[in-house]
Amino acid sequence: MQISKRLQQLNPSATIAMTEKARELKAQGKDVISLSIGEPDFDTPDFIKQAANKAMEEGYNSYSPVPGYLDLREAICEKFKRDNDLTYSPNQIVVSTGAKHSIYNVFQTILNPGDEVIIPAPYWVSYVDMAQLAGGVSKIINTTIENDFKITPEQLEKAIGEKTKAFIFSSPCNPSGSVYTRQELEALAEVFAKHKEVIILSDEIYEHICYGQRPVSIASIESVYDQTVTINGLSKSFAMTGWRIGYLGAPEAIAKGVSKLQGQITSGTNCIAQRAAITACKANPKEIQFMVDAFSKRRDLVLKMVAEIPGFKCNEPKGAFYLFPDVSACLGKTYQGVEVKDSDDLAMYLLEKANVATVGGVSFGSPGCLRISYATSEDKLIEAFARIKAALS
Amino acid sequence: MQISKRLQQLNPSATIAMTEKARELKAQGKDVISLSIGEPDFDTPDFIKQAANKAMEEGYNSYSPVPGYLDLREAICEKFKRDNDLTYSPNQIVVSTGAKHSIYNVFQTILNPGDEVIIPAPYWVSYVDMAQLAGGVSKIINTTIENDFKITPEQLEKAIGEKTKAFIFSSPCNPSGSVYTRQELEALAEVFAKHKEVIILSDEIYEHICYGQRPVSIASIESVYDQTVTINGLSKSFAMTGWRIGYLGAPEAIAKGVSKLQGQITSGTNCIAQRAAITACKANPKEIQFMVDAFSKRRDLVLKMVAEIPGFKCNEPKGAFYLFPDVSACLGKTYQGVEVKDSDDLAMYLLEKANVATVGGVSFGSPGCLRISYATSEDKLIEAFARIKAALS
Repeated sequence: MQISKRLQQLNPSATIAMTEKARELKAQGKDVISLSIGEPDFDTPDFIKQAANKAMEEGYNSYSPVPGYLDLREAICEKFKRDNDLTYSPNQIVVSTGAKHSIYNVFQTILNPGDEVIIPAPYWVSYVDMAQLAGGVSKIINTTIENDFKITPEQLEKAIGEKTKAFIFSSPCNPSGSVYTRQELEALAEVFAKHKEVIILSDEIYEHICYGQRPVSIASIESVYDQTVTINGLSKSFAMTGWRIGYLGAPEAIAKGVSKLQGQITSGTNCIAQRAAITACKANPKEIQFMVDAFSKRRDLVLKMVAEIPGFKCNEPKGAFYLFPDVSACLGKTYQGVEVKDSDDLAMYLLEKANVATVGGVSFGSPGCLRISYATSEDKLIEAFARIKAALS
Repeated sequence: MQISKRLQQLNPSATIAMTEKARELKAQGKDVISLSIGEPDFDTPDFIKQAANKAMEEGYNSYSPVPGYLDLREAICEKFKRDNDLTYSPNQIVVSTGAKHSIYNVFQTILNPGDEVIIPAPYWVSYVDMAQLAGGVSKIINTTIENDFKITPEQLEKAIGEKTKAFIFSSPCNPSGSVYTRQELEALAEVFAKHKEVIILSDEIYEHICYGQRPVSIASIESVYDQTVTINGLSKSFAMTGWRIGYLGAPEAIAKGVSKLQGQITSGTNCIAQRAAITACKANPKEIQFMVDAFSKRRDLVLKMVAEIPGFKCNEPKGAFYLFPDVSACLGKTYQGVEVKDSDDLAMYLLEKANVATVGGVSFGSPGCLRISYATSEDKLIEAFARIKAALS
């Protein structure tokens, strides 16, 4: 049975692959600590569950409008205004089955085969694959830990060429935890404003999980508002990864295209999750502050512990819930008889010898780094870092 | 802002477009009766809502496995065995955001640009568009009301060519209500078995809404099991259209491809709907018989009424909840000063003059027909048919 070329070329998600390997070892009775997956270890807040239950009682079960219920899109507009200083109208909003789906839809809507998408590395693993599924060609801008994994306006200017159609990044960044300041974004916006044909996809899914200044939405810089698609969702901020609610705010032509496409793929997404999303969007961000506080405390803890691991060098993440140490000093070495050539080897070594699941930096575009999620309890983190340290000493 | 060629070529869904027009007129205060949309007018059964609520209480909120929870896939295997005499293992099952999404995923997984997909007309509106989104080229086999809108083995044999990669059909059929008998499917299977490279997509979403003999799954014919993808879902049978749960059973290579693709588009679909789906799949089909009985009674009612409309000629639908009369005798005529050239014109005329929303047959591949849903109350159906009759007399 022959599958299509696009599928043959497609990589399975590296984080999913690593998480499944960890699950297998657990099934074999191994005491595996999973620091590979990107999801909060909290339960969805009760007030959101209650909203979902109410929706069922009120009889929400029929097809919803393809771009999402109007009152949900209105609530998203209010949220964009309140949190991001962004003015969108409901016809600029499309709700999808997770932020991943939003990004997939946008690429399908704007990219023709051969169009270039500029992606700063490290990047979220799926950007390259989703661009490729739409026929797009990724052009990577490399960053280093010395620059806090951020690109400069000069790098951006140099990367933009005749075939450039889009640029995608996340801030707070998965995997590096880096957050661009307003000043940094303004400098990038100056470059974009000279290239109005380039569409910016701003992935803001970690918006609320941020430890210092609130992150800035690049679309709030007026000169690039009309060329930016702002992507967000409920997964990370409200501990609702499994509910699959993502959304975007975009120039109307793109929102219209995304909605037309979605009408032929999934239709409007799960009606109950949409109704609950109205409550989530209207909630005071203080309702979820307890999770952010916990992540912040854990970040301080793991930053101390990672500094003690020989060969690991780490930036200070300002958001999200990952460490992304540069581990290049460990690569090419042999530990307990196992040769560790690249960071994927290192992740596999740590899984097998220390029973700690992490994800190698290769699929994030930074082969010298390792992604370690700290979205788990302090006890587990302490145990995991002790095991990593022992395995590498 | 330039959108991609694939989007420019894509048609918006005709049923959605007509339903939105009806909604607009309603908003203007018009008393519109909507017979355009394909969804039951019942509420989701309470025992399914309770299962959803329980899932939330039990803390289901995290990422689910991409192809769906294992116990859901096991329940789907049991359902396939119980209702369809089909033996699948869980690794042949993928759960998606509606049966529409299942079909989209399969086309993306098996079609390369230029591959042909054979589609009997009338067909569900989205088949052609979804094939096109994967680069596929549709090859239509026309049927007529004289043959109960079914294709013959001879037609199929003639249509299969070197570029044929897939065949897609629904039985019970949306829009015609036709149901292939076992004998008819066996005759088609004989042709397919000679062309093992052709993958059959069997859309069985209306399975339970059937008024005579239970419909047969073509994959239950042994000679074509290994080249068939069986597609189903909960929307129609359990009045859960808005919940978006579709699933498929397929040869393992296709299921694996679909899962890999889904991991890059949506991940596993809404976790709460998935947990509720376990309950739905395990439920005795008798639990939903009351809906089927109501549809059956309405079918008899509308069949009587449609016979009295001048120019309408109707087959007797054996399943689903649509009439699909041949209205070609009405086309080319002028009613109350309005010229009705094709069935889309007729649908628009009926919406504006009679305030009854139907869908023209053009986008179902049968321009001489009109789709009328009878998934609404008897009172409304009586009123709607009286209005249609008056508008065409």
